[in-house]
Amino acid sequence: MELTRFILALVFFLMMTVGSWGSPNHWRKKRVREPCKKLVFYFHDIIYNGHNSKNATSAIVGTPAWGNRTILAGQNHFGDVVVFDDPITLDNNLHSAPVGRAQGIYIYDKKEIFTAWLGFSFVLNSTQHKGSINFAGADPLMNKTRDISVIGGTGDFFMTRGVATLSTDAFEGEVYFRLRADINLFECW
Amino acid sequence: MELTRFILALVFFLMMTVGSWGSPNHWRKKRVREPCKKLVFYFHDIIYNGHNSKNATSAIVGTPAWGNRTILAGQNHFGDVVVFDDPITLDNNLHSAPVGRAQGIYIYDKKEIFTAWLGFSFVLNSTQHKGSINFAGADPLMNKTRDISVIGGTGDFFMTRGVATLSTDAFEGEVYFRLRADINLFECW
Amino acid sequence: MELTRFILALVFFLMMTVGSWGSPNHWRKKRVREPCKKLVFYFHDIIYNGHNSKNATSAIVGTPAWGNRTILAGQNHFGDVVVFDDPITLDNNLHSAPVGRAQGIYIYDKKEIFTAWLGFSFVLNSTQHKGSINFAGADPLMNKTRDISVIGGTGDFFMTRGVATLSTDAFEGEVYFRLRADINLFECW
Repeated sequence: MELTRFILALVFFLMMTVGSWGSPNHWRKKRVREPCKKLVFYFHDIIYNGHNSKNATSAIVGTPAWGNRTILAGQNHFGDVVVFDDPITLDNNLHSAPVGRAQGIYIYDKKEIFTAWLGFSFVLNSTQHKGSINFAGADPLMNKTRDISVIGGTGDFFMTRGVATLSTDAFEGEVYFRLRADINLFECW
Repeated sequence: MELTRFILALVFFLMMTVGSWGSPNHWRKKRVREPCKKLVFYFHDIIYNGHNSKNATSAIVGTPAWGNRTILAGQNHFGDVVVFDDPITLDNNLHSAPVGRAQGIYIYDKKEIFTAWLGFSFVLNSTQHKGSINFAGADPLMNKTRDISVIGGTGDFFMTRGVATLSTDAFEGEVYFRLRADINLFECW
Repeated sequence: MELTRFILALVFFLMMTVGSWGSPNHWRKKRVREPCKKLVFYFHDIIYNGHNSKNATSAIVGTPAWGNRTILAGQNHFGDVVVFDDPITLDNNLHSAPVGRAQGIYIYDKKEIFTAWLGFSFVLNSTQHKGSINFAGADPLMNKTRDISVIGGTGDFFMTRGVATLSTDAFEGEVYFRLRADINLFECW
């Protein structure tokens, strides 16, 4: 009888536990903020200024009425739309062998300070990584670090999601900048 | 013996139940369409028309060949690309204290009726919310309500996903409009 | 006693199993790469060239300094920004009854070869499907197939995620192209 009560208690405990695991609320709480993959890359942007067509990796393609496409506009470049195809490297050296390209668009979107909005992809093609990672988000670029969303991926990064922390690693005049991207993926398939 | 059979039946039942929970199909079915967070915001767009540079929160930065950047183009503004940095408020008053900024891009993309495509972020910075929510989707703006996707978030909205229902709360000429965004998040971390 | 040991072993086994299912690692591993929904569509893009305003479904709305908006720019159209509202059909015939519209933006973003970046939505409105599917990603369009991300959806495609494989089904001069989209959804609600 002792045994019977013990077993029944165990079974009851199990059913309660398992039952709660089945509920959506519990399912939600189980998510942990621990990356399933961490990656660090640098990418390098050289903007076209009318004189550097050989080296330029990006170009202004839209401006507000008061802007032009060879000089970033006044008012903190508000309204400038830039298309880019920037080399991605594993270290902070522009001349290192690229492991892929950062391709997409950024727009300066605030008159009072420098701020941008980004929609782009990392297209990686190296022995280590083949596939793409897609990003979108606000980039208040005067902040030391800023977070954007990893909204999807393909190939090695199939269906991934996460957060990328951007920081400006170098900034030379208005022609060259280098961003460091610390990518933390929280959904891996 | 009665007891034995009872316990075996229970154990068997448990194993079946638990077994089915482990299968991906079951995992899929467990998702419920109940938001884990609900938010309502208003944002206000004042488009630059050549005369309102002080108040304007957005500007046309791209147009088709037949357009210009101080008047929205004919054919329902087809092809106009607008960059914006709009104040976000908790009520429908443009002059209420903003709790953040809606930043990004919208494009008018249909010749026959007004329709837009949106890529933007809510950058929230108030005592209640710190972080960003990223959006993308089609906005058939003549519909009373229309749904776009919440594709990610950072800070308080880390890794979130959901649906935002937009409705036009006010529309004054071609210079000012106010959108109400009912944000329903279905993935919260 | 035999029975007791047997039951205890079973209970112990169950607890171990169930315990491991509760851990985030296990949760991660359970995801399978089997689509919960598969769809195939075609969409048709006729770009405005100054002479086809009646038929055109898209228009160049941004270009680099060296470009113009009625001819795709040199250097593999680098920097050209195109807004589109393309009919979607179930087969590869431009004149079939459309089941929706593909609306959004593509940008040519590489000087050396043709490559684009896409941000757009399928807005479906047929007896079979009502709702929108949102896409983003890199489109290295000289590849036979290329994968972009499904980043969200609404209506029948509420909260969906997945991968769309694009292939160029036809390409006529620089005015018309037709893409086939094989959409595989891996998150369905």
